[in-house]
Amino acid sequence: MTTKQLIAQIHQKKSFLCIGLDVDLNKIPEHLLQEEDPIFAFNKAIIDATHHLAVAYKPNTAFYEAYGLKGWRSLARTIEYLNTNHPEIFTIADAKRGDIGNTSTMYAKAFFEDLEFDSVTVAPYMGKDSVEPFLAFEDKHTILLALTSNQGAFDFQTKKVPERELYKEVLRTSITWKNSENLMYVVGATKAEFLQEIRQIIPQSFLLVPGVGAQGGSLSEVCKYGMTKDVGLLINSSRGIIYASKGKDFAQAAAEKAEALQKAMAAILED
Amino acid sequence: MTTKQLIAQIHQKKSFLCIGLDVDLNKIPEHLLQEEDPIFAFNKAIIDATHHLAVAYKPNTAFYEAYGLKGWRSLARTIEYLNTNHPEIFTIADAKRGDIGNTSTMYAKAFFEDLEFDSVTVAPYMGKDSVEPFLAFEDKHTILLALTSNQGAFDFQTKKVPERELYKEVLRTSITWKNSENLMYVVGATKAEFLQEIRQIIPQSFLLVPGVGAQGGSLSEVCKYGMTKDVGLLINSSRGIIYASKGKDFAQAAAEKAEALQKAMAAILED
Repeated sequence: MTTKQLIAQIHQKKSFLCIGLDVDLNKIPEHLLQEEDPIFAFNKAIIDATHHLAVAYKPNTAFYEAYGLKGWRSLARTIEYLNTNHPEIFTIADAKRGDIGNTSTMYAKAFFEDLEFDSVTVAPYMGKDSVEPFLAFEDKHTILLALTSNQGAFDFQTKKVPERELYKEVLRTSITWKNSENLMYVVGATKAEFLQEIRQIIPQSFLLVPGVGAQGGSLSEVCKYGMTKDVGLLINSSRGIIYASKGKDFAQAAAEKAEALQKAMAAILED
Repeated sequence: MTTKQLIAQIHQKKSFLCIGLDVDLNKIPEHLLQEEDPIFAFNKAIIDATHHLAVAYKPNTAFYEAYGLKGWRSLARTIEYLNTNHPEIFTIADAKRGDIGNTSTMYAKAFFEDLEFDSVTVAPYMGKDSVEPFLAFEDKHTILLALTSNQGAFDFQTKKVPERELYKEVLRTSITWKNSENLMYVVGATKAEFLQEIRQIIPQSFLLVPGVGAQGGSLSEVCKYGMTKDVGLLINSSRGIIYASKGKDFAQAAAEKAEALQKAMAAILED
């Protein structure tokens, strides 16, 4: 998918909502456990109920790998269902991969070719030659971890190296990499005040923003400091939407939570 | 596996060799492609021919994920074969994972419980709360990326933050984490001269050292600066061993390469 297609979808749906599909068998409604593939059944119901409200879905691969082969199959079925029924939707493999050159190419093949995701999240610690192999794939996007939403972000990401914080160094360095126009960035919403400085370094890039809702970030603050003329934001919510109810009405309850966020986004877009 | 058991195995085999199982279908002998599971057939033959020479095997997960479900199945069969037939061998999932707390727990479950690896490699970028969930598993080991062997290591890892280089900050910070006695570290052999300073920060921890052989590192240099009284080193070689021949003699050729390294290690251990 091209960035243009993503922007068109945002304007059409008046939404820049990304729904995180972090499916834990202990948290989904009990009646689904009788299904042949409970994880896929859950995802399918959530997607069916929310696809008109969201522009992106983001399965976190950890939740699938934890169930081994069966989990990997559920992930494959989920992305296939999305690509078949909702090809306009932007898909993110939240995998946080990154390795030396030839190995990163194998990860890129796994997510871009085998599973056919539009994008994958990548950790920057190993530097340029660990990220460029992902950037080599046409119309695919690499979402680099910049400033994450967890407490541990302050262990290294905000350290000065030495003129500026590490995450800013990651931003500044990454825009010099080959095909860097395919880069997006993870920036945690719990630090909305940092967005102003981040936008000075990467004025146009799309930001994937976790941490609105369950982790306490504010949508309006994020938009105030992070929005560009092409929106430039994908706001993710996972648990706050998909676990809105543990009953048979879980998909409807998820849709209501998604709609509340979408309406807030539409209001901001029309502002 | 406990660190004590690993050390006992090193002394018994007079080896601290780790063999990387980075299996690329384009690089394995052609006659194996007719097998029902060529990747597992290749790994089984390599393991059968080299298990007395190596103390650890390290499949890089990227090479399995690139083949989707089939690849994940090959990985599961490989680790099961190792655990069933050679339970004394230390197994490393070279997965370079790392995410916020509850997600890291899911990755830890995937590799420690579902696949039953002894250890997993983890990227430190997201800090303490992304690593501690791995450390919570008893007799399992977390191998933190410190100084990697690729060119991109100089993009961020060697930057000053601001009093010392980032990788040293990673070392110094990580030893304060809960259960840090279960930590090992990835340190690239291409920078043997850095080992002296690294040993001042982590005098006893095991180091997983890639880059001897194909990437140009020197075994004797690494041992000179990095070895502890309990050895404290696992030297990895992947392509240099497993792709020694593309013919039907590939396993024998791999054993010869492994034996050459093992003999060099035995000589150093007896020194």
